[in-house]
Amino acid sequence: MRGEEVYRALFNPRTIAVAGASNNPNKLGYSVFENLLKYPHGRVYPINPRETTVQGRRAYSSIRELPDSIDLAVVTVPREHVARVVEEAAEKGAKAAVVITAGFSETGGEGARLERELVEKARGFGVRLVGPNCVGVMNVHAGLNATFIKTPPPGPTALLSQSGALAAGLIYMMEEGGGGLSKFVSLGNMADLGFEELLPHLARDPQVASIGLYVEGVRRGREFLKALGEASKEKPTIVLKGGRTPKGARAASSHTGSLAGEYRVFQAAVRQARAFIVEDVRELLSTTSAFSQPLPRGGRVAVLTNAGGPGVLTVDELSRRGLEVPSLTPFTQEALRAFLPPAASVANPVDMVASARGEDYRRAASLLLRDPNIDILVAVSVVPTFAGITGEEHARGIMEAVRGEEGAGKPVIALFMGGRVAEGARRILVEAGIPVYETPREAAAAAWALAWRAGALEGRGVG
Amino acid sequence: MRGEEVYRALFNPRTIAVAGASNNPNKLGYSVFENLLKYPHGRVYPINPRETTVQGRRAYSSIRELPDSIDLAVVTVPREHVARVVEEAAEKGAKAAVVITAGFSETGGEGARLERELVEKARGFGVRLVGPNCVGVMNVHAGLNATFIKTPPPGPTALLSQSGALAAGLIYMMEEGGGGLSKFVSLGNMADLGFEELLPHLARDPQVASIGLYVEGVRRGREFLKALGEASKEKPTIVLKGGRTPKGARAASSHTGSLAGEYRVFQAAVRQARAFIVEDVRELLSTTSAFSQPLPRGGRVAVLTNAGGPGVLTVDELSRRGLEVPSLTPFTQEALRAFLPPAASVANPVDMVASARGEDYRRAASLLLRDPNIDILVAVSVVPTFAGITGEEHARGIMEAVRGEEGAGKPVIALFMGGRVAEGARRILVEAGIPVYETPREAAAAAWALAWRAGALEGRGVG
Repeated sequence: MRGEEVYRALFNPRTIAVAGASNNPNKLGYSVFENLLKYPHGRVYPINPRETTVQGRRAYSSIRELPDSIDLAVVTVPREHVARVVEEAAEKGAKAAVVITAGFSETGGEGARLERELVEKARGFGVRLVGPNCVGVMNVHAGLNATFIKTPPPGPTALLSQSGALAAGLIYMMEEGGGGLSKFVSLGNMADLGFEELLPHLARDPQVASIGLYVEGVRRGREFLKALGEASKEKPTIVLKGGRTPKGARAASSHTGSLAGEYRVFQAAVRQARAFIVEDVRELLSTTSAFSQPLPRGGRVAVLTNAGGPGVLTVDELSRRGLEVPSLTPFTQEALRAFLPPAASVANPVDMVASARGEDYRRAASLLLRDPNIDILVAVSVVPTFAGITGEEHARGIMEAVRGEEGAGKPVIALFMGGRVAEGARRILVEAGIPVYETPREAAAAAWALAWRAGALEGRGVG
Repeated sequence: MRGEEVYRALFNPRTIAVAGASNNPNKLGYSVFENLLKYPHGRVYPINPRETTVQGRRAYSSIRELPDSIDLAVVTVPREHVARVVEEAAEKGAKAAVVITAGFSETGGEGARLERELVEKARGFGVRLVGPNCVGVMNVHAGLNATFIKTPPPGPTALLSQSGALAAGLIYMMEEGGGGLSKFVSLGNMADLGFEELLPHLARDPQVASIGLYVEGVRRGREFLKALGEASKEKPTIVLKGGRTPKGARAASSHTGSLAGEYRVFQAAVRQARAFIVEDVRELLSTTSAFSQPLPRGGRVAVLTNAGGPGVLTVDELSRRGLEVPSLTPFTQEALRAFLPPAASVANPVDMVASARGEDYRRAASLLLRDPNIDILVAVSVVPTFAGITGEEHARGIMEAVRGEEGAGKPVIALFMGGRVAEGARRILVEAGIPVYETPREAAAAAWALAWRAGALEGRGVG
């Protein structure tokens, strides 16, 4: 990319033209324009030759007519008009175009021809393309949603995806916990911009703590791995590969036209690049969202819980990943004993039993964060629905402990079981930037990722 | 157990006494009584010497005063009164008592002594005990909730758990998809009834399609494995073990006092008994809930999707478990081609692309269920939030296809991605008895479990 210009145009544009903005809720151009109207940092112009206004804004019949230069064009017009729209955008100074329109190389034949023509034209005018056949881009922290899907909560994770729909699914899952989103690019057919071009910029972006990638196939393997290795030096990058099996690879090839190659080779190369490789969407979310937390100084974990069984399973999952669950100092044990009920256990896991209130979580979590034997805290709650105790108070207790002990610089991971019952608690934690999971496996995967990234597990368990 | 009598008293009692029923919402006896008041098939009496009414019902100062004989006593009174209450219940004809009260052997010392005394007394009177230190029992299909947690949707799964809190977490997760609950016993300290006594009855119960077990340690290994093997002949039984690692086992021993033993030995023995062994709570839910479906005749799966990426990942997860994703018959392919848009793929996976409506799901699912090359259908939707398409219409389309093609007797598994956005769709599917999951891994695990149970994967991939 031409320096930072294209990156700025994509994520912090001052002026945006939406070609295909619509008044018809059944059109993608409706949802895209609706989402963009909420962008607080720039002007957004609807382009639609058949309307005088779109969603209350004056419509322009073409980009040429705009009173302004533009940074970014977002394109949802039929495929045969896309190249012309990009040309007009270039004339108005656009540095980038997000082409949501489908029907290009993924359909072969005429679509493939139109895509080649589009890329040539864009190159000639110096406009970089995202897509075509994509969901769009987001910069959640800036309030920019240039897609037709809903905006997730802001968070630490940047996402680059070769499948727009999978990304949509992941982004909707983020609302339930497991972090939130920073920047997102749906790469679509990768006719122009791909992983290699975007990774270096995301790696340097201060609003990005981790980078998740959904890859079906790469165009230039060597460049991809180089970019991945470079990015991994700056930020944890986490790769989920579609098409790991021969049958899956065949499905991927008919989906994005990518050649998948041998998975083992890919996997080894990704590890060589010091990136994470995961095999499941939940693992992708657990790992990316962990990095809202500081890196630990070691791999020693304290488990705090109100429920024995989930505490046991969490210890199992931590142990089999090579993390330690050590004894607490006598000081911590005594201090816990002083306010916990007799039925509680002050070994590690600390089992406060089902009567634990928010204040117990606050005091216990503070003590564990101060314990010199402990590098990471996993706070577990099976959200109670009885005795007037709420998951929200547990969440607040943990949040207050984290704020009080921020100086300790230790990562905190929450595990709240309870489906819909735990929703309020999860929201509190996500807003406080504490990653929250629903199962012992996911919480342990997050703790492992932090410890591995910190270099605390050299030569030990690969999750 | 004495024939079926105890089982009937636990799950279909005609008269229940709740010792410790309370007007104070901060007491467990409040929630337990509140839940039991909704039981439509019997009389429920509150026992509380300090109240004249409890939640609007006339209170009795002791079980002795009841005008009725009772089948079941549910006990939440302080531990020192439990033995006396059980004695009174026996005098009134109770066959079983669910002792929710904690503070027994799990606390050692005096608690352990009280537990021994309680068991002796109950034996003497011929009353069988669940607990103590447990969450209670449920028979969801009959509207019986003798616990202090919320009632989940009815479904195929029976659950026996040594951790009440873990069970609560699992039960709350069931609301979000992954099936629903049939019968539940929180075993607590297993002072009397344990896995061995309950398994034979659940295995014969026509309202139970699968049995999930959370085990921290068993009292009599040989009897446990024998009961597991016998039960597995009748119904799929699925075991999740807590305390698989030395550290986890230590935590389990301080939780339930169980000796965990060597996990590999346990795992091998469970497999020998032809039961499933799983290692994660989601896997437990995916596997148990699959069995609302008929068993397939083979391991050949059709994947139907509106989204390429999730389709690819689903094929990967199916393939690596030894399931086949074969070509469809030319007839099916032509019939699909006739109504799907040109961008759609009619290979397997069938990718209907993002414009797919509910009617498309109905027609395509019907065709796939009729295809002689196909034994199992996995229907995938990334729930759209644009163009006026809803997840609910996708769910209804699948449901209608299943009803129309019931004669085919083929299992259907749904994979709906989208967090909260997919909630309405999931509810429709759960109510229609179609198991629904949120990730390719979970859906594939369910398909694998069905095929394995059907004997379609002999000698091939163990999930």
